[in-house]
Amino acid sequence: MFPSAARRVNIKDVAREAGVSPTTVSHALNARGQVDAETRARVEKAAQKLGYRPNRHAQRLRTGEAHMIVLLSSMPFAVAGGPSRLGFMMEIAAVAAAAALDRNLALVLAPPMESGKVPLESLEVDGALVIEPSAGDANLDYLERRGLPAVTIGKPCGVHEAVLHVDIHSRETTRLLLDHLHAQGARKVAMILGSAQRNSYVQARVAYEEFAAEHGQPALLATAEEVQGESGGEEVASALLAAHPDIDAFCIPVDAFAVGAVRAIRLSGRRIPEDVMVATRYDGVRARTCDPPLTAVDLHLDQVAHQAIDLLFDRLRGDTSRQAASGPMAQLVPRQSSARRGSPAQTSGTPTQNG
Amino acid sequence: MFPSAARRVNIKDVAREAGVSPTTVSHALNARGQVDAETRARVEKAAQKLGYRPNRHAQRLRTGEAHMIVLLSSMPFAVAGGPSRLGFMMEIAAVAAAAALDRNLALVLAPPMESGKVPLESLEVDGALVIEPSAGDANLDYLERRGLPAVTIGKPCGVHEAVLHVDIHSRETTRLLLDHLHAQGARKVAMILGSAQRNSYVQARVAYEEFAAEHGQPALLATAEEVQGESGGEEVASALLAAHPDIDAFCIPVDAFAVGAVRAIRLSGRRIPEDVMVATRYDGVRARTCDPPLTAVDLHLDQVAHQAIDLLFDRLRGDTSRQAASGPMAQLVPRQSSARRGSPAQTSGTPTQNG
Repeated sequence: MFPSAARRVNIKDVAREAGVSPTTVSHALNARGQVDAETRARVEKAAQKLGYRPNRHAQRLRTGEAHMIVLLSSMPFAVAGGPSRLGFMMEIAAVAAAAALDRNLALVLAPPMESGKVPLESLEVDGALVIEPSAGDANLDYLERRGLPAVTIGKPCGVHEAVLHVDIHSRETTRLLLDHLHAQGARKVAMILGSAQRNSYVQARVAYEEFAAEHGQPALLATAEEVQGESGGEEVASALLAAHPDIDAFCIPVDAFAVGAVRAIRLSGRRIPEDVMVATRYDGVRARTCDPPLTAVDLHLDQVAHQAIDLLFDRLRGDTSRQAASGPMAQLVPRQSSARRGSPAQTSGTPTQNG
Repeated sequence: MFPSAARRVNIKDVAREAGVSPTTVSHALNARGQVDAETRARVEKAAQKLGYRPNRHAQRLRTGEAHMIVLLSSMPFAVAGGPSRLGFMMEIAAVAAAAALDRNLALVLAPPMESGKVPLESLEVDGALVIEPSAGDANLDYLERRGLPAVTIGKPCGVHEAVLHVDIHSRETTRLLLDHLHAQGARKVAMILGSAQRNSYVQARVAYEEFAAEHGQPALLATAEEVQGESGGEEVASALLAAHPDIDAFCIPVDAFAVGAVRAIRLSGRRIPEDVMVATRYDGVRARTCDPPLTAVDLHLDQVAHQAIDLLFDRLRGDTSRQAASGPMAQLVPRQSSARRGSPAQTSGTPTQNG
């Protein structure tokens, strides 16, 4: 019913380490039977040293206790700690947590840690959701070693290609934004991506290169470090504008970079949207409260979250029939940052997902 | 080290029910030793029937496994499911989850359920954070019965008055908003509150009545049902304006109600802020993307979340020295909805908390 776990420390290992019988270990760790204080201390020390854990999954199954899943993001704290990717993660978290509880799954939130790595090994989880993992994602590596099922939101890439996932169609979403900018009159569209290895960036690049080739424009693509956040976007946009003064639009999926680019465009003396238009991806606080408000897309993250929980739940029940789910197609949310053609400037208000 | 739990079903009860020895129960439930399939099934059935759970707290202590805490909100889904209180809860969740992980606590997210009650009994939690509980909050009742420590964000009221809490100073925050409206020229300020029994409403009412008495204006206070969300605020504001046409400002702590009131004010042919000003409390997406953007306060929820985790962590370690923490004072975020006196209209941008 469960993917077989890698060899774990068991009660016999603890018994050997402590020089007692397995029954004594059990009694000591479960506060049952007669175990003197000194022996108990020795057993506890051995258990901690070896990293022994009772088999929670089996216990939970037998007692009807909720299974525990964790929601992870692979974005660095510098990006996810701001109003940007945090919104993305939290929007998924809110819906996924409720959907999980409906299926007797408890969702533990593991936001990117300022202190670095998420201490996954001390969470006795039964499975995980991972938001847009990068290639070689350390959390996915850990889950795989432990034989724990994971579902990624956004296709995984690199060695994790085969992981269960909800496809959020990053290529099509990018194309939607690019086509919108073209329809609004843009003829020289530049793109800024993060420099990490993420499937969404790979897909965005493919869509952009196709778009550029079709429209006979050069591919003006640059990358910024995710950890630099807004200032990364500002720097790169500034350099692009200096090198290619006729750029008339930016397609920048990472909203923190997009907000930084708005600053660079203004500093260069250009107007938005009259001289240069801007479009981003996630329709969060950053896009909505930017001046001017940014054109973005509704990713229907509520549906995506439900699909991810369904996939993980199936796998936890032993149903291995599905390897992936196809998420909903994104929907354009046009705003002032791309309203060059006299389309009504929407300064606020959004479609369904947060309605 | 832990508040004593109410009498729970133990392994002997299960043994009696299944007609086997306690050791057999242990072996059956922990997949150890020699237990035939039929006996195992009988034990599992007995455990499920009686609602038996192993003592997770003891196990977690002995193995170094993360303790599990849950974040609860007592707002109905209709309000919390929207962009409003969800933002409040999620803002706390993001910070609290990271602070919790740093202390080897796993934070489980329990957003208000569309299906009704949060299934707390199947989560084997060691403690809880509860956001602004109402009087007689069912979750707090449950936690108390189980002897589990809880920390509320916002002072609890009614029978739960003695619960650990972080005081978020609702009275002072309300006064801050009222004084701001007065300074901007308002002379007849109305207030709309939710009809539930919450300490924040009680405190807001006290502050408002004091304010009204001091300024010799009548107390124009009405309540709306939380479950009605924006339309509740619209209806009540509309009735207040009809009964008191000279109202020149609204102080409406619930942002959903405030957005509804903006609609009612507009529909009555009045301008905001020229004829009627509006101020709300939580500085979330709703306040920021309203047209016009709403004056609100920065509640410093990041600090509040850290304080709540610290209190709960102390209690889990057996430190009972503190009963409460005093949260930071809120800070005014003036926006266009109250910018009558030619103060610069801030249409976006906010202070620290999400920066």
